[in-house]
Amino acid sequence: MDEVGVLAPATVSNVVCGFDCLGFALDEPCDEMRVRKISEQTVRIVHLDDHGLPTEARKNVAGVAALALLEAAHPGFGFEITIKKNIKPGSGIGSSAASACGAVVAANHLMGGRFSEIELLEFAMAGEMLASGSRHADNLAPCMFGGFTLVRSSDPLDIVRLDFPDVFATVVHPQIEIKTSEARALLPQQVPLADAIKNWSNLGAFVAGLAQGDHELMSRSMLDTIVEPVRKSMIPSFDEVKEASLSAGALGGGISGSGPSIFMLSRDSETANKVGEVMSTVYSRTGIKFFTYVSAVSAAGVRVD
Amino acid sequence: MDEVGVLAPATVSNVVCGFDCLGFALDEPCDEMRVRKISEQTVRIVHLDDHGLPTEARKNVAGVAALALLEAAHPGFGFEITIKKNIKPGSGIGSSAASACGAVVAANHLMGGRFSEIELLEFAMAGEMLASGSRHADNLAPCMFGGFTLVRSSDPLDIVRLDFPDVFATVVHPQIEIKTSEARALLPQQVPLADAIKNWSNLGAFVAGLAQGDHELMSRSMLDTIVEPVRKSMIPSFDEVKEASLSAGALGGGISGSGPSIFMLSRDSETANKVGEVMSTVYSRTGIKFFTYVSAVSAAGVRVD
Repeated sequence: MDEVGVLAPATVSNVVCGFDCLGFALDEPCDEMRVRKISEQTVRIVHLDDHGLPTEARKNVAGVAALALLEAAHPGFGFEITIKKNIKPGSGIGSSAASACGAVVAANHLMGGRFSEIELLEFAMAGEMLASGSRHADNLAPCMFGGFTLVRSSDPLDIVRLDFPDVFATVVHPQIEIKTSEARALLPQQVPLADAIKNWSNLGAFVAGLAQGDHELMSRSMLDTIVEPVRKSMIPSFDEVKEASLSAGALGGGISGSGPSIFMLSRDSETANKVGEVMSTVYSRTGIKFFTYVSAVSAAGVRVD
Repeated sequence: MDEVGVLAPATVSNVVCGFDCLGFALDEPCDEMRVRKISEQTVRIVHLDDHGLPTEARKNVAGVAALALLEAAHPGFGFEITIKKNIKPGSGIGSSAASACGAVVAANHLMGGRFSEIELLEFAMAGEMLASGSRHADNLAPCMFGGFTLVRSSDPLDIVRLDFPDVFATVVHPQIEIKTSEARALLPQQVPLADAIKNWSNLGAFVAGLAQGDHELMSRSMLDTIVEPVRKSMIPSFDEVKEASLSAGALGGGISGSGPSIFMLSRDSETANKVGEVMSTVYSRTGIKFFTYVSAVSAAGVRVD
């Protein structure tokens, strides 16, 4: 086999009380990538979109991830990666994670699958490092494995795949730019122990809610008194979107990644669609351009075409 | 029915990364309590042990809990509570919780079971309040429901009963006194966000490990960089007990409640017994009097005889 196509899904990380560890994969949007063997032992990037991302492999997230794999494997050939990016860069729904995971899954497929998924995650982390400046797998893990994942530790990498019931996500992506560095700067260095306890009690309960398929428990546990209060000011109409979504029946939600997207979870697709409508109503009034997505939480990660 | 006997189990709270929310019930030791109806609308306490606990109902944990129930229910009679306390007061394995839960479960039984378990917990909290000065259900919840429980919120009370696999506990109780107020004073008011994230990632993973019956994951997740480092100095030979236990095959463990007991979890009873032996070896050298307990984690809470 000399060529393969993959679909790499969007992902939501920093799932409310699961800041810096909990994420999930969407069914869509997905980046579409085709990877083919080339005789040069290098990585070439071709873009089929107009996002203006770098084509130099060492400056491109997919390129860096594929190069990391190439340097570990020395397969005697290289890869040309053609990317149609449907997940907008800077949206906060794992655009760079999709590039990195898609590239290494496809490349590994062309090498007969010699690396495990967790090894592939390590290569993909090199790509995320380029994008965010830090070694983290919050979006990579759900993109690779699908479903809800928990990064118990990023060094050494320890990913927990969580059981979960049918659940649907609605995402609104207002077209504003949030620099990751600015979002990071808003985080407190220290937090009150009482708030930390509240947060881990809620995360423990949320994981139990997922495992038991208890949507009501999931809903009660989606509270964050640490990060959301300091970051929500970056996102216009955040409170209004959240209140309208909860009134429309959403279980809960918050900032996706470090924003600007806002996500909500719902028990069924009808509610998720209704949540999409109220999100649109709120943002229509602001004059800010926006996109909405409604999708099942996907049990699958990167899919080989 | 005019009289009933109950067994109220010992419990471990502050389970490593589950500080202030996660606890579990032991099969034994159990307090033995008999409660009988009396015509006076009050509560009388009779002790069958020599722990020197108060006999005045308003100063006794079981008495205060039973009075709270009595005042809510006005059944037209009162209760005489006879207690044989096998769980030593001040041991850190839920002695006061057993008194409080046992009293209200037995009294409720004599009233035809008109209150739900969660309502009974509210009455039992009045007893815990007397014992510890704070409204918390970390030991009460596993004592009432059995198994592993997570207190998602104590106001309003929201208890999550967790799925869990077969697992065994070993407890060593060194005969020293730790005042809860002193243990509280050691806690930091603020914690680094990075430590808090590590903690909730581990708690999320531990709950997933319980749900999936993954003992290895439970083991990797039993880490605490927040409370254990500041409190372990209260307990002689803590590090030595922990290291020896892990070497003997324990999955992990830490301080039970606010000490002085140390608990360890093991995959099977053979390992749990071996852990008991190494704990004994360590403490034998210290000259401190101690007790050890080996018990399955019990799926049952307070049991009516």
